[in-house]
Amino acid sequence: MAVQVSVIGSGAEHEENAEQVGRLLAERGATVVTGGLGEVMAAAMRGAKSAGGTTIGILPGETRAGLNEWVDHVVVTGIGHARNLAVVASGDAVIAVGGRYGTLAEIGFALTLGRPVVVLEPGWEVEGTKRAQTPAEAVEFALAAARHTQVS
Amino acid sequence: MAVQVSVIGSGAEHEENAEQVGRLLAERGATVVTGGLGEVMAAAMRGAKSAGGTTIGILPGETRAGLNEWVDHVVVTGIGHARNLAVVASGDAVIAVGGRYGTLAEIGFALTLGRPVVVLEPGWEVEGTKRAQTPAEAVEFALAAARHTQVS
Amino acid sequence: MAVQVSVIGSGAEHEENAEQVGRLLAERGATVVTGGLGEVMAAAMRGAKSAGGTTIGILPGETRAGLNEWVDHVVVTGIGHARNLAVVASGDAVIAVGGRYGTLAEIGFALTLGRPVVVLEPGWEVEGTKRAQTPAEAVEFALAAARHTQVS
Amino acid sequence: MAVQVSVIGSGAEHEENAEQVGRLLAERGATVVTGGLGEVMAAAMRGAKSAGGTTIGILPGETRAGLNEWVDHVVVTGIGHARNLAVVASGDAVIAVGGRYGTLAEIGFALTLGRPVVVLEPGWEVEGTKRAQTPAEAVEFALAAARHTQVS
Repeated sequence: MAVQVSVIGSGAEHEENAEQVGRLLAERGATVVTGGLGEVMAAAMRGAKSAGGTTIGILPGETRAGLNEWVDHVVVTGIGHARNLAVVASGDAVIAVGGRYGTLAEIGFALTLGRPVVVLEPGWEVEGTKRAQTPAEAVEFALAAARHTQVS
Repeated sequence: MAVQVSVIGSGAEHEENAEQVGRLLAERGATVVTGGLGEVMAAAMRGAKSAGGTTIGILPGETRAGLNEWVDHVVVTGIGHARNLAVVASGDAVIAVGGRYGTLAEIGFALTLGRPVVVLEPGWEVEGTKRAQTPAEAVEFALAAARHTQVS
Repeated sequence: MAVQVSVIGSGAEHEENAEQVGRLLAERGATVVTGGLGEVMAAAMRGAKSAGGTTIGILPGETRAGLNEWVDHVVVTGIGHARNLAVVASGDAVIAVGGRYGTLAEIGFALTLGRPVVVLEPGWEVEGTKRAQTPAEAVEFALAAARHTQVS
Repeated sequence: MAVQVSVIGSGAEHEENAEQVGRLLAERGATVVTGGLGEVMAAAMRGAKSAGGTTIGILPGETRAGLNEWVDHVVVTGIGHARNLAVVASGDAVIAVGGRYGTLAEIGFALTLGRPVVVLEPGWEVEGTKRAQTPAEAVEFALAAARHTQVS
């Protein structure tokens, strides 16, 4: 199975960063997991697809409503915001790009479950996360950390 | 996106049927979704992989513990049996092969959400499901029904 | 803590039975747990309150929308139909009154978790459930079974 | 229905504050909602019961394992950490006392859902929360905010 990296976040102003993160992850062979909707989620997946990568979208609703067009494999959870737990739990590592309160919940869950979390600056400042200055650095950190997650 | 068909159920005595269902789905180009664990779930995915298909496993726990080896893409939900909702919601159609009470909950959820459900005989008798006598018939019914789900 | 009995089901034609079930449970000192919405859920709670009992409503949404007026204590889960798992898991025993597919999912989950399930006739026929002919019999069976659940 | 205030957090060093918060909430007629387990959760409920209040515990597991002895009404969710969503969604307001990553997830969810969040110092610093210096102040802020939540 390929390494899976969850990309979380929101905010239209972070889409360019998210797209680069997605592209770089795909170039390194990692599958990109997101919440399947718009903005940062869509941008990360668009980036992954532009590099021939694979994407998994984990939706909150009971249908595919809102699913972005770069999702290869869709999981419809029906559990609303609780699907945030599934998004981060499904990654060998997590990269946060921008984001508001839902992203904060995801960071909290990821750290609760022991998933390594990389925050691309600027972003939520939470003790226990790794800070990255660029998309390339975020991907580097995430893949290095993911290697340990998979081994353990 | 490929058609996704969820295969649910349990019971070692149903593995041969499940494997055929998985293989036939893959031959028809459908992605096989299951709960990612053993018996019927593993058999359906093994069948899909034997035909070069794609598989998605949606696990109940917070880790990949118990994941069968034929899963291409893994979703770790962390929500226990509530992941049964995600398993059926993620399918354009659902095929039940054997199964006990967890399968009954899945059939209930699938019908609640309007997902077409095919029960391969012998299996739970629930009004609103379609009955199939053979794996080939189950796959035929599921793909015919999935076409309508995707269109709507 | 008082014994808790979950009353599940739906269908306006079953409200009178549900109200009796709720009243009898309250008279016997049991707290009535339901999904917090209308029809059978509301009727069971109305019955419980008419006898001075206590009620807990476990809602699917992210707000109190749809909450019936006989709920003393409300749990807003935000997880949609997956709250059905919480409804049955919270009972020392479960009584089904009428009901469609959501009720079937609840029966499946209750039996998966080892909760005793009493089905008041007419209702879903599922192996492993106890059948009751009257509300009084349903309550009798549920409280007898709940005693064992609490002990173990 | 009484006002419900969710008390979240962890850390043995915060138990005294939590107990005061629980007691003051009960004295003001509010029901105390928690995750039903130990430390801050148990202390808040113990405080509430010492003042004759009412408590609701929302557990993560499939049984009552770990339930503290001051819970009046128990909800067994079976959904693991995703029950954090239910804990905060069930409050008209939320008070955080200490806490680690699970608490951070709860703060994120509470703010996502528009529930007012009061953080008793010292605690997570999150934009959008109200800061309180003492248990009395935390309760004051929470009940003032809860009034608006219930009205709306």
